[in-house]
Amino acid sequence: INDGSSLENLQVVADPSLENRDLTFGSAVEVQGKLVKSPHKMQNMELKAETIRVVGPCDTWSFPLKMKERHPLEYVRQFPHLRCRNNTLGSLLRIRSEATAAIHSFFQDNGYVHIHTPIITSNDCEGAGELFQIEVKNTHFFNVPAFLTVSGQLHLEVMSGAFTHVFTFGPTFRAENSQSRRHLAEFYMVEAELSFTESLQDIMQVMEDLFKTATSTVLSKCPRDVELFHKYIAPAQKVINVTGKSCNSVIISYSEAVEILRQASQTFTFKPEWGCDLQTEHEKYLVKHCGEVPVFVINYPYDLKPFYMRDNEDGPQHTVAAVDLLVPGIGELCGGSLREERLPFLESRLQRLGLADAYQWYLDLRKFGSVPHGGFGMGFERYLQYILGVDNIKDVIPFPRFSHSCLL
Amino acid sequence: INDGSSLENLQVVADPSLENRDLTFGSAVEVQGKLVKSPHKMQNMELKAETIRVVGPCDTWSFPLKMKERHPLEYVRQFPHLRCRNNTLGSLLRIRSEATAAIHSFFQDNGYVHIHTPIITSNDCEGAGELFQIEVKNTHFFNVPAFLTVSGQLHLEVMSGAFTHVFTFGPTFRAENSQSRRHLAEFYMVEAELSFTESLQDIMQVMEDLFKTATSTVLSKCPRDVELFHKYIAPAQKVINVTGKSCNSVIISYSEAVEILRQASQTFTFKPEWGCDLQTEHEKYLVKHCGEVPVFVINYPYDLKPFYMRDNEDGPQHTVAAVDLLVPGIGELCGGSLREERLPFLESRLQRLGLADAYQWYLDLRKFGSVPHGGFGMGFERYLQYILGVDNIKDVIPFPRFSHSCLL
Repeated sequence: INDGSSLENLQVVADPSLENRDLTFGSAVEVQGKLVKSPHKMQNMELKAETIRVVGPCDTWSFPLKMKERHPLEYVRQFPHLRCRNNTLGSLLRIRSEATAAIHSFFQDNGYVHIHTPIITSNDCEGAGELFQIEVKNTHFFNVPAFLTVSGQLHLEVMSGAFTHVFTFGPTFRAENSQSRRHLAEFYMVEAELSFTESLQDIMQVMEDLFKTATSTVLSKCPRDVELFHKYIAPAQKVINVTGKSCNSVIISYSEAVEILRQASQTFTFKPEWGCDLQTEHEKYLVKHCGEVPVFVINYPYDLKPFYMRDNEDGPQHTVAAVDLLVPGIGELCGGSLREERLPFLESRLQRLGLADAYQWYLDLRKFGSVPHGGFGMGFERYLQYILGVDNIKDVIPFPRFSHSCLL
Repeated sequence: INDGSSLENLQVVADPSLENRDLTFGSAVEVQGKLVKSPHKMQNMELKAETIRVVGPCDTWSFPLKMKERHPLEYVRQFPHLRCRNNTLGSLLRIRSEATAAIHSFFQDNGYVHIHTPIITSNDCEGAGELFQIEVKNTHFFNVPAFLTVSGQLHLEVMSGAFTHVFTFGPTFRAENSQSRRHLAEFYMVEAELSFTESLQDIMQVMEDLFKTATSTVLSKCPRDVELFHKYIAPAQKVINVTGKSCNSVIISYSEAVEILRQASQTFTFKPEWGCDLQTEHEKYLVKHCGEVPVFVINYPYDLKPFYMRDNEDGPQHTVAAVDLLVPGIGELCGGSLREERLPFLESRLQRLGLADAYQWYLDLRKFGSVPHGGFGMGFERYLQYILGVDNIKDVIPFPRFSHSCLL
């Protein structure tokens, strides 16, 4: 029997007289008896049953999970209402719960104020891909078009005018028509914003501290659950010591990254060129080139990035103070930047984009006691994929939502 | 100066030579100097400034917050991007952050697994009021109609088949066209589900423990912030000792409640009658009748409640094992029930409602190892309103969304 508190089952030893035809795999039982030291090496204790009551029988013929079978993740994915009873998903959900708590604690212990940034927003032009729109029977409930948030950043920036450090940890949405193993329509993001921050180094330090603290908590709280993934799920080459030396990161600039890619003997589908986005194939190569360690890429082309990133005022290759953290097997795990806190810079950029009116409130933040600030976001599912070596993002979230699929 | 970490300002003492015309209320500054014991009684320390740099000036003429003014909550509500810099909202957000952490800790310390229940769902018939529908440029992104969740309960019930105790704490949505001080279109709910639970008493005990633990943590972590509300915001009669004796609750049945209401000398707009929903005026009267303490009302009419609540098999007044917790000044703070775990009962009820096909997955949970279980939800904003004595729900959430309003 197993109560979901850990991977370990409790062995029940019963007299044949207690047998019951309802006592099948998947049934719920109440067992009374004596907890005794087990004579078997593999377990510490066992329960000598005196009474066994089947609380809820299980129709094993139609129950899709079978006893002592290691069902592939693709198989159990078909049963979103039952797959949590599978060992692997059970471990995943315990790990996810502990990781969530560890992330909350990390920020709390470091003096961050937790902000519930809104899910429904009227900001529609952050340029973060396709948006989901909200409707109530074809009327505009809010008077204005309303969308599901793609990031809590702008709302966190509001708060960074009142608190030195703020964070949010909640659902975000992309209506990307992608069937990729790395994309979901609904996923969780951890986002932080730091005031009085003038260097990307500060932002990268928090990313790294967050990653290391959360991961070592998870490893110490659920060692057996993590072990299951590393043993049976992750391809051998993927099991990395995420808190040890192999986690030591390197920092390269976007310009250096493009140079590395141009000098690569490998042929890419997308030719690496200064001013173009790094593609997945490029990210993979960079991580391999740097020795399969986390790689911070900093200072991206001005024209590639959103209006709120801070102008580095360099040239002729004009960049902004942005940073992406690439990790082995995943690609982009975190993205961040310094924000443009200087009113004239921001004003002229928004005007050029025709967004100055829509973002008057955002300009106000710079008009009234503006401070240098910056922040980042980390994809929580990608984080779990990374530390556990899970290939498909659909297997690290309780109820995956993606194009053509919204089960339950 | 204030860095947002508490209500207390740090007094800076400066020589007139350090004056600067940018040094206005609302500006961001960097001050270097010596921290010394203050000669004033009201403060412990003060900063003797050696240099003062204005990092971000503030145009005080157009800045809507004024120095040393206690702006009414209605006034600052007009400025969602700036109101966090107001003392009251600053205190609120610190309290909200601590309360969030306290709720997470309560469940974690009691062995609950935290589940991120989905925001987008294809369940559309839980009968919890108006739904927001999701659209991507008029195509069905998910192939099926998709909505914003009104509750994580059904998804938690999935998880209660794998873990003994689970909880979720996230945003939920109602498209109610209400301008009430008690309703938002987007609000936060804490929900818990307990397996192997056969009595409402167990559910009520968790509600009460959660309330008391979270509240005493908030009181001990932010005493000054809570004091501000009790002193300046809450009407005097509303300040209650939320953890003391006045918090001792009473339990009455719905039938008793109706009897109390029928015998009241007061005339109600809605005549109290067995089988009808309790209205706000009824809830208020019941709480007053019981001595302005929290009141659990249990065992509601079968025909009033959703399909998943457990049949009490009583009569002629047929009830289900539901419970609502009513509190002074707020009305319903929590709602819960035992869930119908018996397959035949649930099947015939869903069939009568024409929902048996849509909820086949939910019936499956009863087919495979069903256990007696139950749970509840608590409205997080109402909780904050209650402990702080805040009249309008829009003042306890960072970015309120309600009909005709979705700012930022």
